[in-house]
Amino acid sequence: MNTPGRILIVGGLAAGPAAAAKAKRLNPKLEIILFEQGEHISYATCSMPYYIGDTIKSSDELIAFSPENFEKEKGCEVKTLHRVEELMPHRKKIAVLDLKEGKRKEYKYDRLLLATGAKIVVFNPAWLEARNVFVVKTLADSIRLKHYIDTHHPQQAVVVGGGFIGMEMADALRSRNLNVMIMHSGPEPMNSLEPESRRIVLDELQRNEVRFFGEQRLKEILVHDGMATHVVTTSEKRTCDLVILATGFSPNADLARAAHIRCGKLNGIVVDDYLKTGADHVYAAGACCELTNLVSGKPMVSPLATVSNKMGWAAGSNLAGHPTVYQGSVRTSVVKVFDLEVASVGLSEREAQLEGFRVLTESVIGQSKGRHYPGRKSIFVKLIVDRSSKHLLGANLIAEEGAAQRINVLSTAIAANMTIADIAQLDLMYTPPFSPLWDPLLIAANKTLKRL
Amino acid sequence: MNTPGRILIVGGLAAGPAAAAKAKRLNPKLEIILFEQGEHISYATCSMPYYIGDTIKSSDELIAFSPENFEKEKGCEVKTLHRVEELMPHRKKIAVLDLKEGKRKEYKYDRLLLATGAKIVVFNPAWLEARNVFVVKTLADSIRLKHYIDTHHPQQAVVVGGGFIGMEMADALRSRNLNVMIMHSGPEPMNSLEPESRRIVLDELQRNEVRFFGEQRLKEILVHDGMATHVVTTSEKRTCDLVILATGFSPNADLARAAHIRCGKLNGIVVDDYLKTGADHVYAAGACCELTNLVSGKPMVSPLATVSNKMGWAAGSNLAGHPTVYQGSVRTSVVKVFDLEVASVGLSEREAQLEGFRVLTESVIGQSKGRHYPGRKSIFVKLIVDRSSKHLLGANLIAEEGAAQRINVLSTAIAANMTIADIAQLDLMYTPPFSPLWDPLLIAANKTLKRL
Repeated sequence: MNTPGRILIVGGLAAGPAAAAKAKRLNPKLEIILFEQGEHISYATCSMPYYIGDTIKSSDELIAFSPENFEKEKGCEVKTLHRVEELMPHRKKIAVLDLKEGKRKEYKYDRLLLATGAKIVVFNPAWLEARNVFVVKTLADSIRLKHYIDTHHPQQAVVVGGGFIGMEMADALRSRNLNVMIMHSGPEPMNSLEPESRRIVLDELQRNEVRFFGEQRLKEILVHDGMATHVVTTSEKRTCDLVILATGFSPNADLARAAHIRCGKLNGIVVDDYLKTGADHVYAAGACCELTNLVSGKPMVSPLATVSNKMGWAAGSNLAGHPTVYQGSVRTSVVKVFDLEVASVGLSEREAQLEGFRVLTESVIGQSKGRHYPGRKSIFVKLIVDRSSKHLLGANLIAEEGAAQRINVLSTAIAANMTIADIAQLDLMYTPPFSPLWDPLLIAANKTLKRL
Repeated sequence: MNTPGRILIVGGLAAGPAAAAKAKRLNPKLEIILFEQGEHISYATCSMPYYIGDTIKSSDELIAFSPENFEKEKGCEVKTLHRVEELMPHRKKIAVLDLKEGKRKEYKYDRLLLATGAKIVVFNPAWLEARNVFVVKTLADSIRLKHYIDTHHPQQAVVVGGGFIGMEMADALRSRNLNVMIMHSGPEPMNSLEPESRRIVLDELQRNEVRFFGEQRLKEILVHDGMATHVVTTSEKRTCDLVILATGFSPNADLARAAHIRCGKLNGIVVDDYLKTGADHVYAAGACCELTNLVSGKPMVSPLATVSNKMGWAAGSNLAGHPTVYQGSVRTSVVKVFDLEVASVGLSEREAQLEGFRVLTESVIGQSKGRHYPGRKSIFVKLIVDRSSKHLLGANLIAEEGAAQRINVLSTAIAANMTIADIAQLDLMYTPPFSPLWDPLLIAANKTLKRL
């Protein structure tokens, strides 16, 4: 099994390094080269908002491995500032531009992994030429943004996009004492959440003096002397001295598409259970791919680091010749919105209906601690259930404490294909400092059960 | 199904009221009478340490229902200060002593539920006659103890027994500024935990200036003028002005045993899946019973309120003529020991070996938050795994944050009969303020997997 060979990996953020390290560990005879167009690899994307907000002080703390350390500890070659420009699957080689030297070179491979991640959807890339307009995609973006805040002391930020990144950026910028407005497409923030949840999040934004404008479409950013001065939407024209474009992501599958490697309806690279693409000897993992939503059985895309790392591990095993299935995701996610833990898993009610499930939902407010224990917080729970199979399809949990960890219980229950009756019987812990006698999850499950 | 009839319930703490309320809700035609020998029903036993430690100020806050409120809201008759003295299953009646009136009376039933709970094992009941020697079993005990501390200001407490209650009482008494010694049978506190966990707990006791004496057997409590002055063990003789006997519990099955209702090797009442005892028309639920340990398939006993309440619900359904199975427990428990969340589920390594499993264990230290996120804490994880089936059998989790909630994930995984490979694939959430990229549970599962 452990035959020598050369593995090339395109992309150095999450799935790429995870796959490289795994493959080398399983088969040390492999030659592995990792290409990354930026200057950093293997950093904590999800920590960037906390670095910008100054909860985490130094950008060094976000870097799990420098290229040098990764080479030394993992035994893989790392080429940063190398942009892969072309895939030639029929000839088992790729063309790479060395951005420092300006030279293009071809590399042959035995197996290739595409881990090209996601890209931020920017309606008009020219806007990014303004010195005070930012996306928060790479560590370099984050360093530039934080430096800009530190040196220019902007007062009024407009965040375009009220999804996960928009929430995290609003939180970060408020903690830097900027005034913050959010311009968002939907009526409330975070389209992927339930309507009840979105309203709770909206209240939290308002409580933290973030001005939220819903039903907005970005029309123009007015730029004067290389600086954005106004954000213009369908109904608003607002002055600003800082703009963050958090307008959603899509899989970065351009290289694959140009090489006629099959992509799906969600614009991600299509892979099989072993993460093989449509091209021989070419694998893909992470946010550039489509993967299986384990609840609906349908394709999904995910920018989450957890998903990318797990796919990277599975891809690394397959690259090393150890067949390993990546099953998919139940889509567990949590975002901190000021003092709230906002957690979700599985399908939303709307998604479940669109998938043809006969949907029943139930919402309850539980408590995070025992009866009369000081400091307890309310926990909002909404369960989304299939009336036919009685399986849990999805959930939202929101609280000042105890929502983030509890979503993992439901994530586990969904992965185990539990019915609501199973969940109602779970032996969840009880001790007053950490939970009420009837955990909010049990209350919600029992209430649902009575209606099934 | 909803025929009239009279249900008698013996015991008003957890399983009894849960069963009464459930049965009445399912069949409002039932006449239900609940007997309780104490003056309170339906109070939060698990909150008593926090009441004694003054985190919870008033004993009223521990009472979910006064007898009057329970009668009004649940439609069941409540007779407090009524001690059931004799069961006559062949004649379908019981004899009850009214403690206020001093009168004995017989009551006929159609169905009877025994919810007589647990009793504290006290080597010599005469010790309890000293005014400064306490058990912490009932709310009345707790009120007396707190009043004693408030009025007599004792300085030096000896807690006999270093199990769950011993830990909670040490914590409570330290928060009242008493000096605290613990005399315990084992070498370290909390025999039910893994050796590594016990040492972490011991360190936490010492960090909080609790003096722990291991390998002690209580020989005598010296009493002078009705006040305990010294606790004498096999190797220690210590002065004291307050003694707490936290020397373990056993099922309170005396009434059943006297009526020749079958009890098991663990001294609990034996019930079937529907919580029926060996006597016709007699059910039992809660800490007086033996129930099935869902990991070993063997009988266990449990003083936990969660178990009692779930059994009470199932018993209530059966009393009302709705056949409902109570499956058993995976034994999830958490205790707060000063700043630590000490959590466990399933079998210990030792228990698993005694059950004949081929045991593999793995321990890791993970983190509660993301890389470099401020305030993160270490989380100790030990997994106990069956080498043959690769199923998780049990776990310990200890941390200053994030242990209590995480044990519920493993509790769910055990209930779902997950293998370690399944657990390693779980889609657990990640966001730096609440979890690291690789959750400690995933790290532990992956490390175990490599050795299976």
